[in-house]
Order: sequence, then C-alpha cells, then structure tokens
Amino acid sequence: MTTHNLHDTVALLTRTPAALDALLRDLPETWTLRNEGENTWSAFDVVGHLIHGERTDWIPRAKIILQFGEARAFDPFDRQGHVRESKGKSMEQLLDEFARLRSESLDELRKLNLRQEDLEKRGRHPALGVVTLSELLAAWVVHDLTHLHQISRLMAHQYREAVGVWSAYLGVLKCQGHSA
Amino acid sequence: MTTHNLHDTVALLTRTPAALDALLRDLPETWTLRNEGENTWSAFDVVGHLIHGERTDWIPRAKIILQFGEARAFDPFDRQGHVRESKGKSMEQLLDEFARLRSESLDELRKLNLRQEDLEKRGRHPALGVVTLSELLAAWVVHDLTHLHQISRLMAHQYREAVGVWSAYLGVLKCQGHSA
Repeated sequence: MTTHNLHDTVALLTRTPAALDALLRDLPETWTLRNEGENTWSAFDVVGHLIHGERTDWIPRAKIILQFGEARAFDPFDRQGHVRESKGKSMEQLLDEFARLRSESLDELRKLNLRQEDLEKRGRHPALGVVTLSELLAAWVVHDLTHLHQISRLMAHQYREAVGVWSAYLGVLKCQGHSA
Repeated sequence: MTTHNLHDTVALLTRTPAALDALLRDLPETWTLRNEGENTWSAFDVVGHLIHGERTDWIPRAKIILQFGEARAFDPFDRQGHVRESKGKSMEQLLDEFARLRSESLDELRKLNLRQEDLEKRGRHPALGVVTLSELLAAWVVHDLTHLHQISRLMAHQYREAVGVWSAYLGVLKCQGHSA
C-alpha cells in the first residue's frame, strides 16, 4: 500500500473517461441498460452518477477545504442525482459529458497548484467527520475504481446463467457488491 | 439475466483491449506493477494472463468442441502461463499483444460462422465436465469482466490507507476477491 501521490492520482483520474468510453460506447443495451435487480444501477446510471460527482462533489469539496477548512461541512452528496443528470440522454451523450466535466475538473485541480501543506489541510465531511484534502483526492480515485468494479460486476450478471458450470471459476459472479 | 447472444458477446470481447489500453497505457507503476500481497497479481500480470488465454484457451477450445465434441477434453489451462508471456516485456508491449491476439481470435470466431445448432454443441472441460460452445463463449466474456473487476480492486488497494475514513463508502475496498 502506498501513501497518496498527486501525480499518480491525476494519472488515473485522467484515464477513467477514456476507459469507460472504450468499454461502453455503442455497446448493446444488454450491457448498458440492464442492472442487477430492483434498486440497483445499470452502467448508464453509473455514468450519470459520475457526472453528478464531477459537478457537485470532488472539486467543489476541495475548494471548501481550502476556503473554509473544518469550519464549513461539505454539502451532502445526492446519491440519486444521476437520475436528473441522465434523463432523456443517450449513453453516448453521458460519456461525452463525463469526459468534458472530468477534463474541466482536472484543469481546476491544476490551477489550485496544491503544495504538500495544502494536501494536509482539513475539512469536514457531513457524516464521516474530519478529513484531509489528500484523503479527498485519494477517495476520488477509489470512487472511480469502485464504479469500474461495479460496472464489471453488473455486466457479468447479465450472463450469470449463460456461462453454465463455468460460474465456479468466474470470480466476478461471486461478488455480492459492497455498497454502504 | 439473459441467455447467451453471440452479437452481444462479440461486442464486448471487441472492446476489452481498448478499455484496458485506455486505463493502463503509460499509467504510473504504482497502479500497474503493485499487487494485493503475496501470491496475488498486478495489472501487468492480469494482461499477461489474458494474452495466455487468447493463445491457449478460448478459440482453441471452441475448435476442440466443433471437431471432437465430448470425445476429447480441453487441454488444462495453465494459470501461471502469464509468467512466460510477460517476461521481459513492458505493459505497453503486453497491451499491444493482447489487442492483436484478441483481434485475431475474433477473426477466427467469425470464420467459424457459428449457427444456433453449433452453439448447442457439447464439449468436455477437464475439471467441470460437459459444457456447451455457447457456455464457453459466454464464459470468455465474463472472464474479461472478472479481470476488469480484479484490476479495479487491486488498483484501489494501493490507496486503501490514503483514503482515510472514506473507506467506509468505497465498496471496492471491501471486496476480498473471489478466486477459486
């Protein structure tokens, strides 16, 4: 395990939109619109959620830490925000929008010109309590990976029966998800 | 859940190399060379394993089913085959090789010109017993997704401590893996 490294963080955050684009663009709806059952998300929902995070979560929270420190808690994140973001849109529109917003977020991050002492600054999460800017940026990366993990699982679920006895060897089919 | 559909299968198999390329090419070694601890794989190992599968697993087994049916069991798959495949190579070389081999595999699949009655043909897995060609092709897809799931998990592991209290909300960090 490693400590947070801003260069590594930016490298991964930069690649997520292109990875999702390569996987999901023009993919049949079997993979993009189906979910894992009632009250679960499709890949389409996940991309909408990532868009909502770019708008309201990561950079806005970084700025709250830098401006207010622990004095002002972050605005709570709306876990249903993706419904509004994605209504009436195609997967291709969502992928374009996510790529554009992520690129803008990373531009903003560069403009903040963060030094080590900035990364150690503290803010206040409305539920989790005191956090640092460094932890926020690391969580941004792992949030991308959580949803890549979810997408691979929910897509595999569509072939749960189609693989027959091979399911014994295919780990992703044993994953029950790990949402809070 | 859905039954196996050859068009959907090919659509996903076609996209995996580009998705891994977009995620992993020129990514810092923090993400590509680290693993989850002793006897676990890095992203580099996983791409080597996918290459080994293209060479020895999917299309070769499809041909064994079509030629021999249940009369001849598949050759066992070497789960350490990636060590030989990836020795002395860079991640970029592996990504190029996987893309080339997958493209060749899909060319071969097209040439087989499979009809519904072919998909129902049976073969014999050395450990799992009787399987169908349809199940083999569905398993190929879910095998890609299993390793995308694994890569997202093992990369997230590198920031397990860096995210601090956010780990409570980041499902991928709760995944223990599901290998046989």
